[in-house]
Formats: sequence, C-alpha cells, structure tokens
Amino acid sequence: MKKAVLLFSGGLDSTTTLAIAKSEGYEVYALSFNYGQRHEIELKKAHSIAEKVGVAKHLVINFNMRDIGGSALTDNIEVPKDRMQNEKDDEIPITYVPARNTIFLSFALAWAESLEAEDIFIGANAVDYSGYPDCRPEYIRAFENMANLATKISVEGGVKFKVHTPLISLSKSDIIKKGELLGVDYSMTWSCYDPFYKEEQGRYVPCLNCESCRLRAKGFDEAGVKDPLL
Amino acid sequence: MKKAVLLFSGGLDSTTTLAIAKSEGYEVYALSFNYGQRHEIELKKAHSIAEKVGVAKHLVINFNMRDIGGSALTDNIEVPKDRMQNEKDDEIPITYVPARNTIFLSFALAWAESLEAEDIFIGANAVDYSGYPDCRPEYIRAFENMANLATKISVEGGVKFKVHTPLISLSKSDIIKKGELLGVDYSMTWSCYDPFYKEEQGRYVPCLNCESCRLRAKGFDEAGVKDPLL
Repeated sequence: MKKAVLLFSGGLDSTTTLAIAKSEGYEVYALSFNYGQRHEIELKKAHSIAEKVGVAKHLVINFNMRDIGGSALTDNIEVPKDRMQNEKDDEIPITYVPARNTIFLSFALAWAESLEAEDIFIGANAVDYSGYPDCRPEYIRAFENMANLATKISVEGGVKFKVHTPLISLSKSDIIKKGELLGVDYSMTWSCYDPFYKEEQGRYVPCLNCESCRLRAKGFDEAGVKDPLL
Repeated sequence: MKKAVLLFSGGLDSTTTLAIAKSEGYEVYALSFNYGQRHEIELKKAHSIAEKVGVAKHLVINFNMRDIGGSALTDNIEVPKDRMQNEKDDEIPITYVPARNTIFLSFALAWAESLEAEDIFIGANAVDYSGYPDCRPEYIRAFENMANLATKISVEGGVKFKVHTPLISLSKSDIIKKGELLGVDYSMTWSCYDPFYKEEQGRYVPCLNCESCRLRAKGFDEAGVKDPLL
C-alpha cells in the first residue's frame, strides 16, 4: 500500500479527505496539531475518528501559535459572529491564522520524507471557504514546487511530492454528498470555532453562529441532508 | 526602524547574520526552536547572544521533531565523525533533519506576518555547508514565492516577503572575516552537533570531530583567526 500523510483536524473537510484517501487505496498517516487553538475539542474528535476509521498512525504535534499572535483562533480576540465570507466582502477574516497551512504542510512534508511517502492530502477548499489565501490552488502548487527543492528524497531520489486537494473545487454541499457516498459519519466531525459547554447535555455544543458553523449549516442544507451532529 | 525576523540558532552563521541585519538598520526579532535537537546547549548560547547583542524580542518555539524521525540530530543515531561533505562525496548526511528549514521558515513567516514585517533573515550557506538541499538559493526563492501566495498581508496589502540570505555565497572563512569586522563575539557561538560534558572544566565542550566542528575549524584556519571558543 502507498503511504500518504493527511492533515487532519477532525473537521468535516479533513474527515471527508481521509475517506477519499482511503478509497484511493492509501495507507493514511494522520497528522493533527495542538497549536493553542481555542477549540481543542477538535483534537478529541480527530482522535475518535482516526480510531474508528482506521489509520496507520495518528500523530499530534504540539506547538504554541499564541506566542506568534495575530488571530482570533489563538488570541483572546472574540470570534466574529453572523459573518459569512461569500455573502459580505472580500476581506480575510480575523480567524485567519498567519501562515497556518504553510506550517502544517511543512510538518506534513517532514513526516512524509521520514516515512518515504510522496503523497500529502489536505482538505483545503477554495469555494465555500473563508477567504484564506493559503487555501487557493496557486498557493498549493507553489508549496509543492518548494517541497520538491527542499528535501533530500526529492533531490537524491527523484521523488516528486504531490499535495492532493480533492476538495479544492467542491462546494460544501458537494463535499458532504461525496462524504455520504463514502460512508463518512458526520456526527463525529467538528466545525465550530467557538463552542460552549452545555450543562444539561454535559457536552460541548457548536455555537451555530461563527462562520464555520454557518458554512456547515449551508452545506448540509444545500445537500438536503440533516446534520447528524445537531 | 524596519522589523526583521531572524532564524537564530546561536551558531556561527546565524550570529553573523544577526550582526549583518543589525548593521543594515533592522530591528531584529530573533526566532529559535527547541525541536528535540541533541545539542540543546545552542539554545542557551542563543539566549546569551540575543541578550548581549540586543534584539527586539527573542522567541523560542517548542515542538518535537523526534516524533517525526529521520535524523541523527534528533534520533538516537550516532552523529558521524571524521566526515566533511566537500571532501568526501555528494551524499546528504544523516544529520539532515527532514524539511527543517521549511518548518523554521514557515514559523518565521507566521511571525513576520503577525508583526507586519516583510523581511526574514536566515544564515543559510551553500558553500562550506553540509549538502543540505534546503540551503540552496533555488530553494530559498521557491519558499519566497510560496510565502507571497500564502499570506494575508501579501494578498491584501501587496506586501512582498523577502528571505535574506547574506551568507549564501560566502565561504566559512569569509563569514568569519565579515563577522570580525562587525564585532561578532565568536566565543559565544556554538557549532558542535555532539558536545560532551568536561568534568574538570565544569562545562560542555565541542567534540571537534563532527562535520560542524570540522567546518568551523577549517573556517577559522582559513580566515587566519584563532577560534575564541577553544
């Protein structure tokens, strides 16, 4: 089996990407990050999904983006509500984390090189997304180009790293439809940037109002599927 | 003053690069990493140098490259001795750490974006070096290209990130001569990959036999300067 490294947050997109990589016959090495994000619940979800679906290894890298600053996802800045990128303006929101995908992909590249894997999967999406620059196809190609100059196995061994982005041109509802076909259990996935603890249910629940919750709701709505998380 | 982020290990090259950045009028934000390297002594050296020379901030990012594996600098693999790249062969040595400069530069990019700095300095050197692919000019240009597609301030603000590599085409002895002119105190810098603790001196001393020690010795020798660390 060919090995692939997958950037895996436990969210809807990366969980669908995991199912796609597996359906293409890859042995998946799932990589998650504990980087000081406010919604650490996603790591617990990622762990449960990796265990249920089955991966060769699930590795969590710890580092602290809070020291670097510049984002509502890691700083004590309020996560904006009632906002949705495609409806409002072209401004990149403050939930953008500086160079996050570049850092994530760099670790994926290091692990891929160490495993002698050529394939990296990322659930980046340039349609129903939040306007982040590091989700665009031209960025992904530039990273791939850099990766193939950066590494020992590309220089000595002629290995060509490929960054697979199977979701990049799909709408959120198309992602959900694809995932449903592949049997993804969306009740296990997490999207909310700003969850709160609900005493009476004894668990965290999504806020339903941040841009990530709103994109998710729109996706399920357009796919004609009920979100099993709710 | 213009801000610059500097990748700073406390070694000879990055300490010279720090002096160059300061001589060019930059306010320097020094970035070091505790990544599970065997020679953690370099972090202490980096801290002392940053304090003595003066930087706007010295930030240390912690993460564990040992989980990723694939290098004698982080794994329990013996550091090779009596070896020097340029004398022997073209093979990349096992002290190479997978995608290390890519990970380091990615964090530098994140911090630069957060600080609204356009300039990143790295002491990469493609002459008296160890054959690492991520020290070559073509790699640096590819990273820069990727960085300018990855970030909010490059997309929205038209900021052009520049990765400065003032040492890239200098020999080790030319680096030392340049540093001497700028008043670098090389007694504070650390190069050895595999230091050992000397009881009678009550301190760590360089092994003098790893490739990094040998490159350093060759450089001081050719510059006609005595290494003040010894």
